[in-house]
Amino acid sequence: MAELDHAARFAELIGAANVLTAASDKAPYLVEWRDLYQGVTPMVLRPGTVEEVSAVLKHADANGLKIVPQGGNTGLVGGQIPKESGDEIVLSLARLNRVRDVDPQGFTITVEAGVVLETLQREADAVDRLFPLALGSQGSCQIGGNLSTNAGGTAVLAYGNSRDLVLGLEVVLANGDVWNGLRALRKDNTGYDLKHMFIGGEGTLGVITAATLKLFPKPKKLEVAFIGLSSPEAALELFSTAKAQAGPILTGFEIMPRIGLEFCLRHLPGARDPLAGPHPWYVLMELSSGTEAFPVRDLLEAILGEAYEKGLVEDAAFAESMAQAQDFWHIRHGMSEVQRAEGGSIKHDVSVPVASIPAFLARAIAAVEAMVPGCRPVPFGHLGDGNIHFNVSQPVGADKEAYIARWDEMNALVHGIVHEFNGSISAEHGIGRLKRDLLREVKSPLELDLMQRIKSAFDPNNTLNPGRVL
Amino acid sequence: MAELDHAARFAELIGAANVLTAASDKAPYLVEWRDLYQGVTPMVLRPGTVEEVSAVLKHADANGLKIVPQGGNTGLVGGQIPKESGDEIVLSLARLNRVRDVDPQGFTITVEAGVVLETLQREADAVDRLFPLALGSQGSCQIGGNLSTNAGGTAVLAYGNSRDLVLGLEVVLANGDVWNGLRALRKDNTGYDLKHMFIGGEGTLGVITAATLKLFPKPKKLEVAFIGLSSPEAALELFSTAKAQAGPILTGFEIMPRIGLEFCLRHLPGARDPLAGPHPWYVLMELSSGTEAFPVRDLLEAILGEAYEKGLVEDAAFAESMAQAQDFWHIRHGMSEVQRAEGGSIKHDVSVPVASIPAFLARAIAAVEAMVPGCRPVPFGHLGDGNIHFNVSQPVGADKEAYIARWDEMNALVHGIVHEFNGSISAEHGIGRLKRDLLREVKSPLELDLMQRIKSAFDPNNTLNPGRVL
Repeated sequence: MAELDHAARFAELIGAANVLTAASDKAPYLVEWRDLYQGVTPMVLRPGTVEEVSAVLKHADANGLKIVPQGGNTGLVGGQIPKESGDEIVLSLARLNRVRDVDPQGFTITVEAGVVLETLQREADAVDRLFPLALGSQGSCQIGGNLSTNAGGTAVLAYGNSRDLVLGLEVVLANGDVWNGLRALRKDNTGYDLKHMFIGGEGTLGVITAATLKLFPKPKKLEVAFIGLSSPEAALELFSTAKAQAGPILTGFEIMPRIGLEFCLRHLPGARDPLAGPHPWYVLMELSSGTEAFPVRDLLEAILGEAYEKGLVEDAAFAESMAQAQDFWHIRHGMSEVQRAEGGSIKHDVSVPVASIPAFLARAIAAVEAMVPGCRPVPFGHLGDGNIHFNVSQPVGADKEAYIARWDEMNALVHGIVHEFNGSISAEHGIGRLKRDLLREVKSPLELDLMQRIKSAFDPNNTLNPGRVL
Repeated sequence: MAELDHAARFAELIGAANVLTAASDKAPYLVEWRDLYQGVTPMVLRPGTVEEVSAVLKHADANGLKIVPQGGNTGLVGGQIPKESGDEIVLSLARLNRVRDVDPQGFTITVEAGVVLETLQREADAVDRLFPLALGSQGSCQIGGNLSTNAGGTAVLAYGNSRDLVLGLEVVLANGDVWNGLRALRKDNTGYDLKHMFIGGEGTLGVITAATLKLFPKPKKLEVAFIGLSSPEAALELFSTAKAQAGPILTGFEIMPRIGLEFCLRHLPGARDPLAGPHPWYVLMELSSGTEAFPVRDLLEAILGEAYEKGLVEDAAFAESMAQAQDFWHIRHGMSEVQRAEGGSIKHDVSVPVASIPAFLARAIAAVEAMVPGCRPVPFGHLGDGNIHFNVSQPVGADKEAYIARWDEMNALVHGIVHEFNGSISAEHGIGRLKRDLLREVKSPLELDLMQRIKSAFDPNNTLNPGRVL
């Protein structure tokens, strides 16, 4: 069958208006915001129901066509962008955007893959519940993509990754078969838990079309402190103490270096130093509670008072209003973008065991400074999750292009150290196309082989997202 | 190769003292406490290291031998008992019982499969941490078996099932290959999350030899109330209110019927009615907090006061001491055993969506009473997890044998209703041999096929636990 014949067949299956072939119509599906990839595709398909997704995949699989599922197109590793070869068809889930069921009593919600994360958060909020997944891209990313990539975000410490929020899935397999795994059960031990293969599978094993998700009580009280410390060791000890005392009430624990704060003070509109004097490291600590009855502020002050006595904390500022709490978070959220104003930045999205963070930072900082004298490491992120955004800004006055040209060399150096700490070279963003080759360096041949066995068992014709992950 | 030759070979691999062939030595591995199964085996193998487990499986897989992994032998569905055919070899993990690492700062612990659950709980307690998994059999069950069956227990409401407590696994595959998936990472998006296939895989996909597990802050304050209510509807609404206000502090929410309490008062030594008058239904509600700062008792009283105003609660007793709290739990924990004193009891381990519990109970109770006039349903359990132990005692004075003879008939009736509520016929205990045929009735052919594809991909020679699950 010729390409045109396939387009005509897809038009019969999902309607001509939902088969995009004009360059201008396809364009938004082919670029991603970091401009790492520029995709080429014969057509973008926009089915509106699970039956249409099934029909599309059945035809594609039977005819050797390659399908790239796409949600909100916010992925950072190229998984959702068709290859430059131009033979991969984009399958957009955007039109599967219904909220199928909301159950506040049972603390669950069932939504289709194309529902935008922010919409999902609002649906939960409307019934006095919380859907905790929160990301920078929440205004445009879709829940199907979040689940396919096991998205992390800022609420992982208290609520877990996307994976931990899923009770059940509806998935269309490569050959068009529909698996109805939409269960709202908290306990179910009836065979292998298949949903965990599709969550984080990056669209290579099946296309998630709907999910039943956990909801939580909506936080009623929130307290934030901006804390100055002498070292990552002190930050780690503070974390352990805080978690031991606050447990699930500890909903944020972010570490930042002094240089990151200085970048914000220089380049981030509205940013001001919450503390009087300078400190080598900072922690943004948040406690929040679903009940008014919890003395959150008292606990926060007790934890920090004790830490101050122990010499763990040099100084701390408490947010006295929601606005001030937002000012503190504004600094943390601005930490990535302000690096652009300081020239080239080489980035790493890594994780290590929480207790290894101080040792990892010491090793990695020394290594990159030895590799590029004068470079400025700005490691920051979710200490409580062991997840550090290890970004390194160029030396002052150095040539940006020449510095960025050493991206792979520095990645190899840092990832080597991550590997020694039994860490992860992709804590949040996944593998996609960007880290596919890296995966071969950090995973054992056996683990890669086990993944390939599952891929072959679920998608024998390699129809779904070929060349991603594996 | 003859059986004796295999025994000799295994003796070379793991030492003659660890190859049990005498009937008296094998006996403890061949019976399980409900006497549903009486196993037969040529030998019981007791390797002491992961390398020895690997060597055993390599030889078995290469020679067409069948292996039945066994932990503490506390399973309730026959998964760990060799078949009567007598050709399955028992692989005991009991000697892999080392605690490899305890990391209180990072809130993790790494243990081998043969570590007894109670030992694991004590190791955590010794560093002021909690390992929350708690079961009736915790004095003898082993963590490897708990993970292989995704054990549930009484702490699921706040901490999740066994699956949710795992960060990483070490697994020996059917052919002896060792997968080192022992990671202590809270975030890791580098490919398919293989550990979830082995957790709940009931030893059919690989043999778990070690695990890195999550630890939690140790609860410092605990409050329990014994509550009388008019209906499951009232209990559900109380649950939703309590969870919305207490969130993760709500660590227990168990429902019991009046007849269950009466059985306890008649047959359970030391049991007394915590409330003055009788009530149709009861809830045992527990709040616990890792911090002294939380006014747990105030919150419990506030929640119940409000519920009383709304007419949800008829009466409530608060435990004024640890001893009294234990008295309340004593009734809940005695609920199963006291049914024996009332004659035959037909049991179901089922779950439905939490919000469906009242409707499910109404349907199921009416159905069994219509099937066996005069029978006495005693449904109790973890309302907060949607998990009900739907046990039905025989009519007073009826013939026990004749009643028990209708076990399968009543199971079919109740499981049919569970299925209509999109529930689970095995919420906690798994499939093993006992529910293997039932699985075919409740799972779609596609889901069974997907499970079989994974089984074939991981264990092509069907060496591990043949005839269990699939």
